Amino acid sequence: MSIKLKGIAASDGIGIAKAYLLVTPDLSFKKVTVADSDTEINRLHQALETSIEDLKTIKGRAVGHLDKEVLAIFDAHIALLTDPEMIKQIEQLIKTQHINAEAGLKAVADHFINTLEAMKENRYMQERAADVRDVTKRVLSHLLGKELPDLAGIDSPVILVAHEVTPSDTSQMNKQYIKGIITDLGGRTSHSAIMSRTLEIPAVVGATDATQQIKNGDMLILDGLTGEAIGSPSQAEITDYQKQAQYFEAQRREWAKLVDAPSVSADGKQFEIASNIGTPTDLGDVLKAGSDAIGLFRSEFLYMDSSDLPTEEAQFEAYKRVVKVMKGKPVVIRTMDIGGDKSLSYLHLPEEMNPFLGYRAIRISLQRQEVFRTQLRALIRASQFGQLRIMFPMIATLEEFRQAKTIFTEEKHKLQADEPGIGDDIKLGIMIEVPAAAIFAEAFAKEVDFFSIGTNDLIQYTFAADRGNECVSYLYQPYNPGLLKLIKHVIDAAHQEGKIAAMCGEMAGDAVALPLLMGMGLDEYSMSSSSVLRTRSTMKSLDTAKCAQLVDHVLANALTNEDTRKMVKAFLNK
Amino acid sequence: MSIKLKGIAASDGIGIAKAYLLVTPDLSFKKVTVADSDTEINRLHQALETSIEDLKTIKGRAVGHLDKEVLAIFDAHIALLTDPEMIKQIEQLIKTQHINAEAGLKAVADHFINTLEAMKENRYMQERAADVRDVTKRVLSHLLGKELPDLAGIDSPVILVAHEVTPSDTSQMNKQYIKGIITDLGGRTSHSAIMSRTLEIPAVVGATDATQQIKNGDMLILDGLTGEAIGSPSQAEITDYQKQAQYFEAQRREWAKLVDAPSVSADGKQFEIASNIGTPTDLGDVLKAGSDAIGLFRSEFLYMDSSDLPTEEAQFEAYKRVVKVMKGKPVVIRTMDIGGDKSLSYLHLPEEMNPFLGYRAIRISLQRQEVFRTQLRALIRASQFGQLRIMFPMIATLEEFRQAKTIFTEEKHKLQADEPGIGDDIKLGIMIEVPAAAIFAEAFAKEVDFFSIGTNDLIQYTFAADRGNECVSYLYQPYNPGLLKLIKHVIDAAHQEGKIAAMCGEMAGDAVALPLLMGMGLDEYSMSSSSVLRTRSTMKSLDTAKCAQLVDHVLANALTNEDTRKMVKAFLNK
Repeated sequence: MSIKLKGIAASDGIGIAKAYLLVTPDLSFKKVTVADSDTEINRLHQALETSIEDLKTIKGRAVGHLDKEVLAIFDAHIALLTDPEMIKQIEQLIKTQHINAEAGLKAVADHFINTLEAMKENRYMQERAADVRDVTKRVLSHLLGKELPDLAGIDSPVILVAHEVTPSDTSQMNKQYIKGIITDLGGRTSHSAIMSRTLEIPAVVGATDATQQIKNGDMLILDGLTGEAIGSPSQAEITDYQKQAQYFEAQRREWAKLVDAPSVSADGKQFEIASNIGTPTDLGDVLKAGSDAIGLFRSEFLYMDSSDLPTEEAQFEAYKRVVKVMKGKPVVIRTMDIGGDKSLSYLHLPEEMNPFLGYRAIRISLQRQEVFRTQLRALIRASQFGQLRIMFPMIATLEEFRQAKTIFTEEKHKLQADEPGIGDDIKLGIMIEVPAAAIFAEAFAKEVDFFSIGTNDLIQYTFAADRGNECVSYLYQPYNPGLLKLIKHVIDAAHQEGKIAAMCGEMAGDAVALPLLMGMGLDEYSMSSSSVLRTRSTMKSLDTAKCAQLVDHVLANALTNEDTRKMVKAFLNK
Repeated sequence: MSIKLKGIAASDGIGIAKAYLLVTPDLSFKKVTVADSDTEINRLHQALETSIEDLKTIKGRAVGHLDKEVLAIFDAHIALLTDPEMIKQIEQLIKTQHINAEAGLKAVADHFINTLEAMKENRYMQERAADVRDVTKRVLSHLLGKELPDLAGIDSPVILVAHEVTPSDTSQMNKQYIKGIITDLGGRTSHSAIMSRTLEIPAVVGATDATQQIKNGDMLILDGLTGEAIGSPSQAEITDYQKQAQYFEAQRREWAKLVDAPSVSADGKQFEIASNIGTPTDLGDVLKAGSDAIGLFRSEFLYMDSSDLPTEEAQFEAYKRVVKVMKGKPVVIRTMDIGGDKSLSYLHLPEEMNPFLGYRAIRISLQRQEVFRTQLRALIRASQFGQLRIMFPMIATLEEFRQAKTIFTEEKHKLQADEPGIGDDIKLGIMIEVPAAAIFAEAFAKEVDFFSIGTNDLIQYTFAADRGNECVSYLYQPYNPGLLKLIKHVIDAAHQEGKIAAMCGEMAGDAVALPLLMGMGLDEYSMSSSSVLRTRSTMKSLDTAKCAQLVDHVLANALTNEDTRKMVKAFLNK
């Protein structure tokens, strides 16, 4: 009998392969008294050696398809396992206290971890603590005869089945063998989901108990278009899905032909389909997708990948690189959005009860002006190399925007002393992600050059539901008619003043949302590069007048998220 | 030279008295080796005895004006200080380790505290840990020759100057001597502010560095109407403020005459001014203020003051008591609003990154239905004794309201098997505090019986700013035109369907907001009982047609919170 699972469709495509359970086995043990310490010490050394061999094998296989930085981690782990000081301490504990190797190892490792973790402000030490934790797990697994999952060692096609997928898991994955991902936790905006879309791996998230229901090695079908999965499918089911997968691949090949095509509706109305990017290394995907622009360049990587504030020069180089590659196409760079779930030890931000409702983004920039001014100078200088736009995040009140604009103008005038006219063409816009700004869009539209609706945060605040919190994930409701009304209000307000209305949240790349947004006249759709061509293809088939009728119909009749979804589905199937 | 301070006006009235600094002195010390253990043990005993005398004196003075429960705390503290086991342990430590009395005391106390606090689920043990902490502080202060502030010992008029005022401070205060409160931290919705209004003590909060600028014993003027304070004022300033204080007291006497008066505008339009209450013990204040209704009865106290879920019977008795006392006037009871900043150990709620955006209020009730059904049954049964209304908190979507209503109807029908017709008159309403519900109010208005706008949370979510977080307190903007537009939309939507629009946040009792809300036609204003008569008095002086013109003027012209404030002030001064 096949097992049916249902989760959230998180990344398009169909995967058919054996399940690979990414679940740490139970490594608990009892601390016991052992008279024969020599045997325990021998067990320890054997486990250490097997662990070192493991790591060497994994590293050997990984050379070539993993980044150098990831490979360096394996060397660090091997170095830890051969550290004479640590081994001596474990041996002594086993001897003097007459305990088993597991207990000796754990006690010494915990002592190291605690010492390292006590240095809270030191990111390097925190990472070393994680290293000790990782290698201890490996040695323990050998002592206990349990098998650890080994992502980097995967060398045949699998579908990953996990509680959730972390960034460190991602770094070890060999993409060519991962045919799909299904997780117990997460929503459309979780790390697992975003990463899957970026790597173009079909994914279903939030499937509750997938890791319980699926056994390692089970055959598994995963449909990232519907959010469904089938464990131990029948041959008929496999054949059916193979056909669907072929159809999807054929579609994808069709889409690929649109790389140089314009983004237009069936009735010839021109739109802009843009990419969201996190670092300059994402530029390859942007070019491959033929995006019309970069609608959101998150500048946080400059701050996160550093142990101190990035210099003006380092920022300038990064911005310049992106702007130059885009050859005159618009590049919207968002100023620092630190705070919330992104902390920076060197900025010494306060501990907060509700960080998403706290000191973050523009709220920090307006107070820590030296940080903000450095970034603005780098941006103004980079603007000479293409079409650069600046966007301020988390704007809630007009005063905040006015203050940010004043600071920008001051820095621009300072730079113009040496370089007349520099920065005069820069358009200044704001993220619409705080409900207050969306509601009062008509006032903002008079003063800003463009809006970009950040739907992930806007939905989170409008429904008062943390998008990372499973307990309230049912409140991520992009099709809720109240929210749609608010989005239409923002777009109308922009157009009333002749300004651009863009969107850069997950919703911009959502197939159900597309006809609604086109019907509202949204100008720019910024999304994961992997969704650009699919969206351009669908856009070609939609008539804006009919979409506008759909919007009227939905706003007049839908009362719930589900009502809207049904109305759009009916519209698309006509 | 007098010292001018500026904070947030948090509770009406003017106070003139000496400053009393409620700041714990520095009790740090060095652990040192002391050869002469006997002297240290003598020092310990002396400090213990002086501490016991302290407590006896404080208790003696407090008898009569403090609750029995608070007095019992003093006895518990004295018992701790005479505990032979604890004293023996400290003595031994001093002797065997040759350390000073301070270090011995601290080591033993910390051990007790850690042991007690380790029992995390046990509220009783947590409170005992707090007791040990308190008495240790007192003994340490005597060992170090430092003076502790002594709230319960205050026996002449003072103005409290504190970092912030905690609920435990409040319980020790002898209200008759506290002429004002000024705190460094807090906003209009902080504990310090709400407590001051309840006790009718003039207060200024969020004055940043009041505890630094004011010295103990300095003369101090505090103006809870403007948020200003003057340290070491001149005689002229004192005279001036004495006059203002007299004027305010005269006003208050005038207000007192309105206890039985109707709540009407100058042009004779009838409104309802209601009280927010937290427990049935607040009923005395409600009657004293002559409130037209109870607009918000928070039911959390039933859950918080208990070590397990309250029974249906206990809830029924509490609801019945309030409904009976109000003799047919409306009593709006809000179902459980646990979660957010109110946790309950016995409900085993998840740890959350952003609790205000998490699993709380109706979101819990709809999942933990056994808890919700018990509360609804108690409410339906109590409805026979007066006019009881039920209000659901944190409603974001229509589905949530529909689900809550279905569960209510099911329980009602079960009870009607024994008691035909019971609960048929109960009106069901929702809090409008999640932006999604406010924006989509027109749809909710068709299905609910009434709205109550909870401005504290609505503002927090609309501006994405935690109301407890100092760093973003500038975003508490009740007069922001975008927010006012949203509130007007909610009121209009209710009236369109012939439903009641109420408000039960801080804003309902705010003097600047009043003309705006009257101009929008808000039906019910629910606030701290201490604000009811002042509001009724002001209401009498305002013409609703002129208020409506003010609303039009503000919505057409104001761009910021400050713009609105100026327009309303100009209107009120006409």
